[in-house]
Amino acid sequence: MNITISKCTAVNGTTGEGKSLTKEERKEVVEHWIKVSKKRLIVIVHVGCINVKESQELARHAQDVGADAVASLPSLFFKPSNIDALVHHCAEIAKSAPTLPFIYYHLPIMTGVELNMEDFSYRAQKEIPNFGGIKFSSKDLPDMIGVVFSGVNVLFGCDEQFVGGLAMGAHGGVGSLYNFMPKIYHKMIALIKQGSLPEAREEQMKGQRLCRVMYKYGNLQGGNVAALKQIMSYTGVEMGPPRSPMRECTKEEKEKFKNELKAIGFFEWL
Amino acid sequence: MNITISKCTAVNGTTGEGKSLTKEERKEVVEHWIKVSKKRLIVIVHVGCINVKESQELARHAQDVGADAVASLPSLFFKPSNIDALVHHCAEIAKSAPTLPFIYYHLPIMTGVELNMEDFSYRAQKEIPNFGGIKFSSKDLPDMIGVVFSGVNVLFGCDEQFVGGLAMGAHGGVGSLYNFMPKIYHKMIALIKQGSLPEAREEQMKGQRLCRVMYKYGNLQGGNVAALKQIMSYTGVEMGPPRSPMRECTKEEKEKFKNELKAIGFFEWL
Amino acid sequence: MNITISKCTAVNGTTGEGKSLTKEERKEVVEHWIKVSKKRLIVIVHVGCINVKESQELARHAQDVGADAVASLPSLFFKPSNIDALVHHCAEIAKSAPTLPFIYYHLPIMTGVELNMEDFSYRAQKEIPNFGGIKFSSKDLPDMIGVVFSGVNVLFGCDEQFVGGLAMGAHGGVGSLYNFMPKIYHKMIALIKQGSLPEAREEQMKGQRLCRVMYKYGNLQGGNVAALKQIMSYTGVEMGPPRSPMRECTKEEKEKFKNELKAIGFFEWL
Amino acid sequence: MNITISKCTAVNGTTGEGKSLTKEERKEVVEHWIKVSKKRLIVIVHVGCINVKESQELARHAQDVGADAVASLPSLFFKPSNIDALVHHCAEIAKSAPTLPFIYYHLPIMTGVELNMEDFSYRAQKEIPNFGGIKFSSKDLPDMIGVVFSGVNVLFGCDEQFVGGLAMGAHGGVGSLYNFMPKIYHKMIALIKQGSLPEAREEQMKGQRLCRVMYKYGNLQGGNVAALKQIMSYTGVEMGPPRSPMRECTKEEKEKFKNELKAIGFFEWL
Repeated sequence: MNITISKCTAVNGTTGEGKSLTKEERKEVVEHWIKVSKKRLIVIVHVGCINVKESQELARHAQDVGADAVASLPSLFFKPSNIDALVHHCAEIAKSAPTLPFIYYHLPIMTGVELNMEDFSYRAQKEIPNFGGIKFSSKDLPDMIGVVFSGVNVLFGCDEQFVGGLAMGAHGGVGSLYNFMPKIYHKMIALIKQGSLPEAREEQMKGQRLCRVMYKYGNLQGGNVAALKQIMSYTGVEMGPPRSPMRECTKEEKEKFKNELKAIGFFEWL
Repeated sequence: MNITISKCTAVNGTTGEGKSLTKEERKEVVEHWIKVSKKRLIVIVHVGCINVKESQELARHAQDVGADAVASLPSLFFKPSNIDALVHHCAEIAKSAPTLPFIYYHLPIMTGVELNMEDFSYRAQKEIPNFGGIKFSSKDLPDMIGVVFSGVNVLFGCDEQFVGGLAMGAHGGVGSLYNFMPKIYHKMIALIKQGSLPEAREEQMKGQRLCRVMYKYGNLQGGNVAALKQIMSYTGVEMGPPRSPMRECTKEEKEKFKNELKAIGFFEWL
Repeated sequence: MNITISKCTAVNGTTGEGKSLTKEERKEVVEHWIKVSKKRLIVIVHVGCINVKESQELARHAQDVGADAVASLPSLFFKPSNIDALVHHCAEIAKSAPTLPFIYYHLPIMTGVELNMEDFSYRAQKEIPNFGGIKFSSKDLPDMIGVVFSGVNVLFGCDEQFVGGLAMGAHGGVGSLYNFMPKIYHKMIALIKQGSLPEAREEQMKGQRLCRVMYKYGNLQGGNVAALKQIMSYTGVEMGPPRSPMRECTKEEKEKFKNELKAIGFFEWL
Repeated sequence: MNITISKCTAVNGTTGEGKSLTKEERKEVVEHWIKVSKKRLIVIVHVGCINVKESQELARHAQDVGADAVASLPSLFFKPSNIDALVHHCAEIAKSAPTLPFIYYHLPIMTGVELNMEDFSYRAQKEIPNFGGIKFSSKDLPDMIGVVFSGVNVLFGCDEQFVGGLAMGAHGGVGSLYNFMPKIYHKMIALIKQGSLPEAREEQMKGQRLCRVMYKYGNLQGGNVAALKQIMSYTGVEMGPPRSPMRECTKEEKEKFKNELKAIGFFEWL
């Protein structure tokens, strides 16, 4: 089961604050995306939850309403503590949506679960019939290249080192920066394909410049996702305030944030 | 609002695997406990969730069905990253059960949220009208004594250093070991009250001996809570298997586990 | 080999910035202390270094010039990664000063070495003939009580939870706060001996109040040891500036620091 | 000041166990390398120590005996805790060898010092006249690209993601695997220069296969450096046993280790 980027939408993921929604709200959001995408977009539904049971319910729902794939974090309170437990855990969720590819969402910085993905990949391919790949949101590229050579599909999640990720073999990306600066990332992909690494790096550096401003305001707002929403609003797509425990920028912060983005040239990258 | 130990039951907490239940199951468990306790026991309901919205729903339910107090972890995906965010977050949950005391559950080892509780205590007392105290499950006793001197009620959660916790000022305890070796802990409390620290330590050391065996099997089973359930079954209270991502002991492990408990004298402590 | 507190001096330890001195300077400091102490004080010499070889040289020197005990951290670059390695490592240093008791200095927050001290204690007693105890500078009291029950002498190093440490069985303490507020700590010890825990806690809370101010300035100065020296100077004992990578307070900071200490009542505790 | 790889030797670095040698031994090793290299090799001398004073002494010595560059870790006990302290710290060492380029050795996994290198780079270029670059041994490529765009020379230290490092802009590499499989790494560099990323990845994957076997035995031996020495001996260069706290392989382990290397094809890569 193969997936290529820029034709997917990942619904209820981190950036979309899916984990701040109730189960009912999450279902509603999924149904809406499927309706509006009308099969022009591949819809990947994030079903990660506090426990397996609720992830299963969301996976089942995703399949029922016509999603194209299911992705899940590990359970967020009692966490899989070894490969055995993680494979079993993913198998349990995957079998609730057996006709859809199941993608494991590896995001150690937020989940605290940092098991070896190369080892997991060999096991998952054998034990999960509908295993569809890994969304790899870690800077550990040596582990990632092991996943790639195991034959597993990798969607890279660290936009700020996308060039490094592609060079080490990622098949595509799912990230937040693509929402507002897709041109830069398309250019990056084209340049890497041509083997023009120095030029690709110039584009990558733009991502890093954006991130450093974003982290600064994310820190004030209690989370980067809140800052990402603020950036979206500067591009004309109003997102509304984030949910607790994050907060919106104050009026003054909004002004400063915009000026710092201007200073790095952000508005010319759109 | 004051609470004393050994007359409370903490429902849907860590040991009870509350976070592995669906919201519906959690509500059912609460209703059952309230029914069977018939006001002989103070019922504290844990409402910690992946996000604030669902914690609010559970808090509201707890109040509606007659619970005595509400306790909550911080949200488990997007986490409060500073005192401001944590106070706001707790206030949001507390106001959903405004007639009940609200207890913050400080469990940094599992939540990753390790903010200064002394600072939080001063703020929470001012900004959360029904703030009822902290369940303090951390080894950071210097922070804990600060909470105590701020005037906030502390329920200590580290059974394996209960004597240290009481000596530093904790008002009571909520823990897992009390489920199967309450005699030892009652003795400990009595000895500390008398000022007999060396004798209290003898009892405390029993807790530590138990814990070291328990950690060993908890490690095999993917979590200490699974081992705690196994221990309960040795005392005659059959708990059933834990939910994923933990697993039950194999038959062989059960035998060995029991023998190791016998070797440390566990069955004479009941 | 038994050691009691308040009659010892720990030379070249953390507070004395021993690790910022060259080997030659460290030797000079040791010789001076031995000369001025004239056997009225037990002199414990810290010999922790970047590697075993240099710790051995310092241990040998300590014995040669008449020290009473040797204490060492684990090697600071290549670190002992399991109990085997740590026991071997300590044995190597201990045998270089075979007539002196050897004390292992457990300070995980600065060394990154956090092995189980209870297990280590059983091994060290068997394999190191002149093993003399552990300076335990960690908040992990469940591990510490295991050390105590193994029969090993514990000098507790967390002044800010001294009451908890004594309650859990520490035999004494080696710390920084004793340098300028020994009265408070002597009072604490007396109160614990009487079984007057609430009164002991009142004294303990003074330590915590001092620490919170100290951390604040330590943070500005690049390390708590720099702030401890500043506090010493307020009590009339001028220490001189710390070495790099720490820095002295600016004149303005000195003023503010002193005022904050005044505000918590520090100068009445001397 | 510019440095290119494969013509350098880094003396007294991690792999050479420089930190397990006494100061006198370190000086001897440096003098020997300079003698035998006869200016055919650029000699970079690692002077990282427990404190600044001793690093200064080693830096001075390196310049006196004719080294080409000096590299240093942060001090290993009292650690620079912010950019200010780190810049000051490096400046102090750099000025002890003012005619040689000074390279900062960024190795957070072993030093615990993980400050932002992009920010450090801008400061170091201004405040350290002989600043020569960063040996970057971290997986944080977004930080590394920032260093590159600041104009600072980057020697990449993570051999197991060398392709990712070069793609993100590293100017060269200093690593351990180059000691025994330089052909693979030369091939990797050539392939990247041609823009043949898929072929470069094939070579990179060999490095990752080697590393996974090496980590396994490094874990048994108490450190990867011990395993690296063992691998050297298989290639015909006998290194002798590592110093404490690491240990040599047992005879049986040596046999198994060799067979595992054979199984991944290692001996064909030489």
